[in-house]
Amino acid sequence: MDDNLIRFLDRGVCGVPDKLRDAMEYSVSAGGKRVRPVVLLSAGVAVGGDERDLLPFACAIEYVHTYSLIHDDLPAMDDDDFRRGKPSSHKVFGEATAILAGDALLTEAFRVMGESTLAEKDPGRALAAVGVLARAAGAEGMVGGQQLDLLAEGMQADPLVKEEIDIRKTSALLTAAARMGGILGGGVDAQVADLAGYGRALGLLFQVKDDILDETGSFEEMGKGVAKDRVRGKMTYPGVFGMDAAMARAEALGGEALAALSSFGEEADALRDIVRLVAARRS
Amino acid sequence: MDDNLIRFLDRGVCGVPDKLRDAMEYSVSAGGKRVRPVVLLSAGVAVGGDERDLLPFACAIEYVHTYSLIHDDLPAMDDDDFRRGKPSSHKVFGEATAILAGDALLTEAFRVMGESTLAEKDPGRALAAVGVLARAAGAEGMVGGQQLDLLAEGMQADPLVKEEIDIRKTSALLTAAARMGGILGGGVDAQVADLAGYGRALGLLFQVKDDILDETGSFEEMGKGVAKDRVRGKMTYPGVFGMDAAMARAEALGGEALAALSSFGEEADALRDIVRLVAARRS
Repeated sequence: MDDNLIRFLDRGVCGVPDKLRDAMEYSVSAGGKRVRPVVLLSAGVAVGGDERDLLPFACAIEYVHTYSLIHDDLPAMDDDDFRRGKPSSHKVFGEATAILAGDALLTEAFRVMGESTLAEKDPGRALAAVGVLARAAGAEGMVGGQQLDLLAEGMQADPLVKEEIDIRKTSALLTAAARMGGILGGGVDAQVADLAGYGRALGLLFQVKDDILDETGSFEEMGKGVAKDRVRGKMTYPGVFGMDAAMARAEALGGEALAALSSFGEEADALRDIVRLVAARRS
Repeated sequence: MDDNLIRFLDRGVCGVPDKLRDAMEYSVSAGGKRVRPVVLLSAGVAVGGDERDLLPFACAIEYVHTYSLIHDDLPAMDDDDFRRGKPSSHKVFGEATAILAGDALLTEAFRVMGESTLAEKDPGRALAAVGVLARAAGAEGMVGGQQLDLLAEGMQADPLVKEEIDIRKTSALLTAAARMGGILGGGVDAQVADLAGYGRALGLLFQVKDDILDETGSFEEMGKGVAKDRVRGKMTYPGVFGMDAAMARAEALGGEALAALSSFGEEADALRDIVRLVAARRS
C-alpha cells in the first residue's frame, strides 16, 4: 500500500514545487495503519471487484485522511507538534506549506479518482465513489466533525455531542471506505448498504478504542493520570460514559460490525479480520 | 449565479454545523466577478451544452476559487485582514474555522459534481471534468502556484518565476473553466483544445491586469507610490517587466484569447465579451 500511495501522487506535466512535494510525501509515508484503504479494498473484493481497479480509490481515501491529520495538527487547530512519533508537518515545513500540503492532498484524492482506469471502464461507478467520498469528507461529515470537536473543547461532557463528533469525524470516512468498495466492486444495493453498516460500526469502534487507549495508554506512559485528549479539554468515550461503559460499547460495536456482514461468506473474511484487529489494538 | 452558489451548498442529511455553514456562506456570497463560472457556462453553451447541466460545475469551480482566497488570506500565508472590502474569513470566524471553511468548500466542489444531474446522464463527461478541475487546482496547478508565490516572496524580480506563478496560480483555473465547459457541453477535442487556449490567455491577461491595477490603483489611492503586492515583496508584472511591457502584454494576451476562438461563430460571443471586460477592468 505504501508504495502505491507514493506512486499515485501526481508528478505533474509541469512539475510540483519540491517543497510542496516533500511535504506531501512526508505525511503520506509517515506510516499509520492504512485502515481506510484496506477497508475499501477488502469491501471491493468481497463483492467481486478487481483490486487493481480499486487501488486509486484506496489511495484517494488515504490522501483525504492524511490531509485531515495535517490540518488538525495546525497551531490554530489542535496544535500538535508530533504525529505518529514524528514532528508534525508544520513543525518541519512551516505552517503555510503544511496548509498547502493538506489542500494538495485533498485535491489529489479527486484527481486520482477522476483519472483512474475505472473512470474509463465504468465512469458511473467511479463518479458515485467521488460523491460518496466528498460527502463523507466535507461539511456534513469529517470537516463538520472537526468543527464540532473544536466547538466542544472545554465543554461539559455530553454524550450526544460526543457521539455526533465521532460519527462525523471518524465513522463517516470509514463508512465511505466500505461503501466505495462496495460500489466500485460492483455490489448490489443491499450489499452496499450492509457494507456501509459495517463501516459505520467499525468507525465508531475505532474511535472508542482510540479513546480507551488515550486514557489508559497515556496514564501508563506519562504517569500523569491524565490523557492527551483530556488534557486538551476534549471529550473521550471513557471520560463521558465511564471506562466500563466504553469497554462494553467497544464489544457491542465489534459484534455490530460482524453482524452487518452476515449475508457474506468467506469472501468477507478480510473485513472480519479488520474488526478483530481494531478490537485488539493496543497502540 | 449568486443564488445558485448558495443553493448548491449542501445542507446535508445530518446537517452542517452552524458556524461552519456561516463561514462557507460568508465567503461564497462575498461577491467577486464570478469570472470562472461565467467562463465555464459560456464555453459550455458555445459548444451546444445545456446551461442547467453545467450549473453545478460552474458552482464547483467558484467554490474552489473561494476556498483558495480564504486559505491565501490566512496569517500563515498572505496575512490579509480584508478581502473585497470585507474582513477576511479568519478575522470574522477565527483561524480554525477559516481553515475548515476552505477545506469544506474545496470538498463541496467535488460533491456537487459527483451528485450532479449530468453524473446520471453522462458520467464520463462529468468525471472528466472532475479530473480537469482537480489537476488544475492541485499540487501542479493552483496550490503549487501559491507555494511558488510564497517561496518567491522577497526574491529578486525574475521573469521566468513570475510567469510560472501566474500560469499556475491564476491561469490554471481559468483554463480548467473553459476546458470543463467544452467537455461538459459535448465539444469535440479540437474545440476543447481551442477553449483551453482561450482560458490560458484569458487567465494570464487577468493576472497582468490585476498587477497593473495593483500598481496604479494603489499609487493613486494610497498616495504611497507603492502597491499592495509590492509592499508584500511579491512580484508584479509591471514590477518585473516595466509598465510599458505590461500594457503591451495585456494587449497581446487579449488578442491571443480572441484568436483562440476563431473557429467559433457568434455562439462564442459571450466568451469574447469576457475578454473585453477583463481588458477594460478598472478595479
